[in-house]
Amino acid sequence: MLHPFDPGGVNEPFRSLCADYPGPEAYPESQFRVEWGPIFHRGRLDGSARVLVIGQDPAQHETIVRRILVGEAGRRVQGLLARLGITRSYVCINTYLYSVYGSVRAATRRGAGLVSYRHRWLQAVLGSGQVEAVITLGQAAREAWELWQATPEGQAVAVAFAAVTHPTQPESSGHNAAEVAQATAALLQNWNAALQALAPALQHPDTPTPLAPYGTAWAEGDRLPIPEEDFPAGLPAWMHENDGWARRVGSDALAKRRNITLTVPSGVLS
Amino acid sequence: MLHPFDPGGVNEPFRSLCADYPGPEAYPESQFRVEWGPIFHRGRLDGSARVLVIGQDPAQHETIVRRILVGEAGRRVQGLLARLGITRSYVCINTYLYSVYGSVRAATRRGAGLVSYRHRWLQAVLGSGQVEAVITLGQAAREAWELWQATPEGQAVAVAFAAVTHPTQPESSGHNAAEVAQATAALLQNWNAALQALAPALQHPDTPTPLAPYGTAWAEGDRLPIPEEDFPAGLPAWMHENDGWARRVGSDALAKRRNITLTVPSGVLS
Repeated sequence: MLHPFDPGGVNEPFRSLCADYPGPEAYPESQFRVEWGPIFHRGRLDGSARVLVIGQDPAQHETIVRRILVGEAGRRVQGLLARLGITRSYVCINTYLYSVYGSVRAATRRGAGLVSYRHRWLQAVLGSGQVEAVITLGQAAREAWELWQATPEGQAVAVAFAAVTHPTQPESSGHNAAEVAQATAALLQNWNAALQALAPALQHPDTPTPLAPYGTAWAEGDRLPIPEEDFPAGLPAWMHENDGWARRVGSDALAKRRNITLTVPSGVLS
Repeated sequence: MLHPFDPGGVNEPFRSLCADYPGPEAYPESQFRVEWGPIFHRGRLDGSARVLVIGQDPAQHETIVRRILVGEAGRRVQGLLARLGITRSYVCINTYLYSVYGSVRAATRRGAGLVSYRHRWLQAVLGSGQVEAVITLGQAAREAWELWQATPEGQAVAVAFAAVTHPTQPESSGHNAAEVAQATAALLQNWNAALQALAPALQHPDTPTPLAPYGTAWAEGDRLPIPEEDFPAGLPAWMHENDGWARRVGSDALAKRRNITLTVPSGVLS
């Protein structure tokens, strides 16, 4: 059985970007889990990406897998990309290299070191001239894109753009099932508008797909598996088929911050 | 600050080897922790390796890092290689792709699928013609080498060879400090013999080094750090500076088998 995998940033300019990244001087320990290291991307770094997705920050599953958007948010993004006919030709980077701890101060978020390194990634991805559309997930990512657009390099790049509601915003914001359902309906309406805006720009879909809007709730097929070829070599299937296998466990905030507990899902061992 | 990293098996023949590997049909779940996925190597896969080290099987730190020999055994091996002037031009593979659970049956150990896949790795590493010496760690690795030597491809390869005592055999075998000390003295004697046998074959050391034997106990400098460039991109420093941060925790054997608990060492967070 073949297990395609993602080699990561092995060629320039990505190789240098993965070897030379900002640390606590740009990402203070009080606002970011710098102790777990940076996590850079998911998807194609070979110049073949047609869509760039900008997410927010990595969580615990991403920390183990060392790829971003590998959990529930990632599966919803796969569904969004698939509606645009993009099943392979995408790349995702995050607003932040490190997992957010608490909240991020505006001065940190706009810090020169943090922003200039991210701009190097944006230039690396967009410099190929292959990207046709950019999708930002949530507010911080939208700001990241706007900061880049304001640069001379950013002004030189013409791509379709949609700032969408973050894929797990309904669960983060809703206090009960009714609120989550309402926020989900709003998210899907927002995503439908993005589909309308982006679809005409995508001239090279992997799988040409008639544009079909979401309904008012998540339906069968709206969440799609993250392809095995987006993961590093040798990871077991349960790491990419579902999340929920990595938790931060501890009796107080510091213990929790220092811990990630992995559990092989039940049913994997016979 | 630059953080060199190892891109892994990105070029052929290693890319195919990392995408197409045996599973439970060769590595039964009753004898191997197949549920955590295969872990392939550490070191150079670009044809520059002058020494091949064959270890036994990966443990919990290796499972997280996805590189082999990254714990105490690995640090002792780095010291051994350094005495041969090899600080960079090495590659390590294991006898087994998966972590041993309990013990391995002879029929499994010599199974056709298990052995033939390992032979593909040996051919890939040795086919470059650059390797000048092979070191096996422990009994299973020695047998792995002997099985390869018995093949037509193995017979065509002429390299210096030393089968050494496994680097952590003293701790595994000793029941108290005196026994560990005695076993350590025996190990170092065994390693000194290997140094004598291998040194003349190493025509291309990274750092020409006058041959110096070990003493009768581990001394300052005998254990060396594993270079950051042997690890995947972005891993935090504490993951390569020490081990002890990954444990298998659980109230019974199955719970323990399903768990790996990561803890950021104290002192990393200020």
